[in-house]
Amino acid sequence: MDYYIKHNSWEEKFRKPFGAVQSGEKVYINLEAENFSKAELVLIYFDGTEEDIELSSKKINEELYNYFTEINIREDYKGLIKYHFKLYKDCRVIYYGNNLDVLGGEGRVYQNSPKSYQITVYKDFKVPIWFKEGIVYQIFVDRFRNGNKDGKVDNPKKNSFIYGTWQDEPMYIRDASGKVVRWDFYGGNLKGVIEKLEYLKNLGVDIIYLNPIFEASSNHKYDTANYKSIDPMFGDENIFKELCHKAEQLGIKIILDGVFNHTGSDSIYFNKFGNYPSLGAYQSKSSTYYKWYIFSEYPDKYECWWGIDNHPSIDEMNEDYINFIIKDKDSVINKWMKLGASGWRLDVADELPDEFIKLIKSHIKEIKEDSVLIGEVWEDASNKISYSRKRQYLFGEELDSVTNYPFRNLVISFINSQITAADFIRNIMSLYENYPIECFYSNLNILGTHDTERILTSIDKDNRKNMYKLIMALSIQMTIPGVPLIYYGDEAGLTGGKDPLNRKPYPWEHENIDIYNIYKAAIRLRKKHEFFIKGDLSFHDINEDILCYERNYGKTKAIIIINKSEEKSYNIRLKSLGLEGYQHIEDLSIDINKLLDEELVEKDIISEHVKINPLETKIYKFI
Amino acid sequence: MDYYIKHNSWEEKFRKPFGAVQSGEKVYINLEAENFSKAELVLIYFDGTEEDIELSSKKINEELYNYFTEINIREDYKGLIKYHFKLYKDCRVIYYGNNLDVLGGEGRVYQNSPKSYQITVYKDFKVPIWFKEGIVYQIFVDRFRNGNKDGKVDNPKKNSFIYGTWQDEPMYIRDASGKVVRWDFYGGNLKGVIEKLEYLKNLGVDIIYLNPIFEASSNHKYDTANYKSIDPMFGDENIFKELCHKAEQLGIKIILDGVFNHTGSDSIYFNKFGNYPSLGAYQSKSSTYYKWYIFSEYPDKYECWWGIDNHPSIDEMNEDYINFIIKDKDSVINKWMKLGASGWRLDVADELPDEFIKLIKSHIKEIKEDSVLIGEVWEDASNKISYSRKRQYLFGEELDSVTNYPFRNLVISFINSQITAADFIRNIMSLYENYPIECFYSNLNILGTHDTERILTSIDKDNRKNMYKLIMALSIQMTIPGVPLIYYGDEAGLTGGKDPLNRKPYPWEHENIDIYNIYKAAIRLRKKHEFFIKGDLSFHDINEDILCYERNYGKTKAIIIINKSEEKSYNIRLKSLGLEGYQHIEDLSIDINKLLDEELVEKDIISEHVKINPLETKIYKFI
Repeated sequence: MDYYIKHNSWEEKFRKPFGAVQSGEKVYINLEAENFSKAELVLIYFDGTEEDIELSSKKINEELYNYFTEINIREDYKGLIKYHFKLYKDCRVIYYGNNLDVLGGEGRVYQNSPKSYQITVYKDFKVPIWFKEGIVYQIFVDRFRNGNKDGKVDNPKKNSFIYGTWQDEPMYIRDASGKVVRWDFYGGNLKGVIEKLEYLKNLGVDIIYLNPIFEASSNHKYDTANYKSIDPMFGDENIFKELCHKAEQLGIKIILDGVFNHTGSDSIYFNKFGNYPSLGAYQSKSSTYYKWYIFSEYPDKYECWWGIDNHPSIDEMNEDYINFIIKDKDSVINKWMKLGASGWRLDVADELPDEFIKLIKSHIKEIKEDSVLIGEVWEDASNKISYSRKRQYLFGEELDSVTNYPFRNLVISFINSQITAADFIRNIMSLYENYPIECFYSNLNILGTHDTERILTSIDKDNRKNMYKLIMALSIQMTIPGVPLIYYGDEAGLTGGKDPLNRKPYPWEHENIDIYNIYKAAIRLRKKHEFFIKGDLSFHDINEDILCYERNYGKTKAIIIINKSEEKSYNIRLKSLGLEGYQHIEDLSIDINKLLDEELVEKDIISEHVKINPLETKIYKFI
Repeated sequence: MDYYIKHNSWEEKFRKPFGAVQSGEKVYINLEAENFSKAELVLIYFDGTEEDIELSSKKINEELYNYFTEINIREDYKGLIKYHFKLYKDCRVIYYGNNLDVLGGEGRVYQNSPKSYQITVYKDFKVPIWFKEGIVYQIFVDRFRNGNKDGKVDNPKKNSFIYGTWQDEPMYIRDASGKVVRWDFYGGNLKGVIEKLEYLKNLGVDIIYLNPIFEASSNHKYDTANYKSIDPMFGDENIFKELCHKAEQLGIKIILDGVFNHTGSDSIYFNKFGNYPSLGAYQSKSSTYYKWYIFSEYPDKYECWWGIDNHPSIDEMNEDYINFIIKDKDSVINKWMKLGASGWRLDVADELPDEFIKLIKSHIKEIKEDSVLIGEVWEDASNKISYSRKRQYLFGEELDSVTNYPFRNLVISFINSQITAADFIRNIMSLYENYPIECFYSNLNILGTHDTERILTSIDKDNRKNMYKLIMALSIQMTIPGVPLIYYGDEAGLTGGKDPLNRKPYPWEHENIDIYNIYKAAIRLRKKHEFFIKGDLSFHDINEDILCYERNYGKTKAIIIINKSEEKSYNIRLKSLGLEGYQHIEDLSIDINKLLDEELVEKDIISEHVKINPLETKIYKFI
């Protein structure tokens, strides 16, 4: 049996409006197909209930019909609606559903068990402008800057090691079994961050996201010992306050890392080693904190994060814990926000109950209307299933933004020619479709973090070509919807593979100036042009090497053209990109040869064609 | 066949004089035996040549004869003379030689292959008084004291680690294969030693022996990178000069550690990693230093100390190396002695050619008449065979003193009841007999060093008894011939097993005051009474638990009685110790209960018996 059947969730004639919708909205859905006796739309709601709607039909020509309906989404519904089509001819049934990789767009016929399309339904919400329009800079405090003039390390911990010099290569100090036996520190601190606020402002940074800063044994501090104090190596409450205050004066916001899935085993709360005066959960069942943890056999068998026994897991829905973290007058959230934090990044959001995330969200908005909540999620957060449960992250009452690791993977894979331009487009389109528009435009677009290889190392296939590839990556990051995040030191040319090599100290006075200039130019480019921040996004599918997309905002349009080929040049005819009505063209491309002059030159171009050389990135503005 | 045959090298009627003799001296040797037809003395010289001397005989009584001779040792002979006896009766031959453990004293009959007795023959020499009569304090510089008020570590090395706190427990930072991958430092330095000179003076220290201080990658600095500069973490030439000068003002001498068997692979000379601007032996065969080393396959296979590839061995007899270390006007030896060093401790003397040691000895005496040369030797140095060669250490033209590790083993084994008092006596008597008298009285008597467990840990079988055992050990160390060496921190109660735990930092402000007082009292005891330094030594064999010996000097005598039993008390009749003619007795025992009063109380005693309790140490002075 040979059919013509088509639905493409990205085209308005098939689905309108595009993408995620708010509760109470209507969605028009249409299918083009040959003459079937009946066509149904099968809707599957978040709770698993199903609804079959018989579609109206309208003849288009001799052979083709539209089968359509308008779904009225209930005012009180939020979550996902999945859908596919069921078509009847004679006594046979066939299905049409999403494509095999479930990315949306054009689908396919199934004989049974069709993949579903997704409509994300969310409660209306707004992400604060400062976040949506900002540039984030991530700081791993121990490695960024020691604010002591004489290089003294503040309050080193007992049985720990300090690197001999700031330039040393990071390493873990492990025993023969591979376990970290002493923590290693460089001595970066909050005074150092304060000292470098002007530097960051000058780079174009609006928001600082700090890796955890609360007291903890390790250098990364994901093993919290005391949620209510700054680690003494990093500073104290007053220094934190000073940091927030001075940052604010420069228009910079501070976001903290909230590690609420587990504590350190060496903590006030668990106190496995008796290092704290408090009575810890490990020490006695009569500890105040005993119920925070989940023991299978007291005291030595307990749930812990990824089986790492110095990260005992928390039962986050424990009432006492919720009060301690969120609700108490002097709760952890209250304390640090009152001292100046503007938002939180939730570590391992996948491990936190939806309800816990919602409680935090509503609470922080109460304290500061314009605060933000970011979740660490490594995949499409709209339909994430973790531990066999569908997660609620992006339905309006939870996260404002997530760590966009899919973006990083796509950029690097594309630049390294592991995927085609079409693959890149389909994957970004899928996030565009699935995320509430506020979330998509607030997506934390990362090229690297403390948990990945650094961007320069990820594209380091051929040193000579690095600068071009870096410009490609940065151009995408700065011109696509979402909030760009710069991982400290990337702008100075730091390289490094996986942890701990991605945590080298910032190379003060040994920065790679060319790379710094590329970063600065890229950031300025984004900040100068509203369309890069707010403009609509659409792609042009040209060929496998050319990634081409446009951003439209008001009467202006930007076109970004990137050639990932290392050998081929292409001529792109500008007219083919639908530029009727635009009179004036400016070349905004980041010109590596001009960068040392600092000023980004905007050149008028005249040709009707653009020649795009291997590994070249072109950015044009049309007015 | 049943015989009575006897020789006892420790008794004057059998051998006279006792012990080692000078070239050109005469030695009377006698054997008591039943009526043999002939008795010969077989002498074996250092070069292996043998001489048989027929002994004169003289009847003592019906059955017993003396068989005797007087050996005239040639003026130009030095080295060992080994001897045994050959006795003829009818047509049979039997032998009499040293006991099976070759310790001297009473021997035994052999049917063949007798063990030999030893006569050490040496060229007359004197060990400088300041050394012979001094108290040595050994300092492992990185662990003793950081002289910077703010605790700053001077000039940390690239890719090394500094301990978080001075109180941290030392550890090696190794990779999975066990290789040290980064060096660990606390930050002790020469400024710290200068700062503590008064402290050392007050303790009673006369001589400081510094573990190596020349530039090197490691914390122990046995991997010299530059023989002509002080490691920048430790200080510089001027600070060294200042140390020597200030020490001299307090009457304290400085002895350096000379590591001439090997250099570091990371050095000016070998330069394996290209860290130095010089052209190293590893880098090119045209390096000035190429001939210092022994390559079997250039450049990656080379001889190294104990197979540790970052300690490439030196061909010490290389003329250029000899000039560099010894003979040049600005040689290593010259440089540091002119800046203030009073002597050297030769690291791994066993690996240095005799000739090289002699060259150093004659050279340092030229520079400073009263300088000393100490060798690191772990066994009886008079008859040491290393690498199948008989070594020349103690024949007058080589070492003044050796590290008396046998002493340490005997003291600890006795205190821990692993050997009897008789074992202790025989082993010490053997050294007494074999060493030139100057060497025996200059023997560096150690209870622990950077290469052994610390004394407190070695006797730490039962904490409650530690103080008594420590007093036993220290009483022996301070009252027996030889120069006592205190390993830094032992006096403060530092504990620690093998390396690296024996290299903990000195616990400033956390000293164990009781132990400090014991050390101070023991040192004062020695320094107050000449007989402990200069007196003759003789032992009383009382029983397996009681170590009893006396020191006789002029008209005074000291008796030391130590009961190693943890249960038994003993009554010792003083008269049995040959005290006729002495009128006055003082009790010099270190009284643990009185120590906090600081003043050592000397009490008259009246009883004719001494009751000695379990683990008690009694010291009496007879005038």
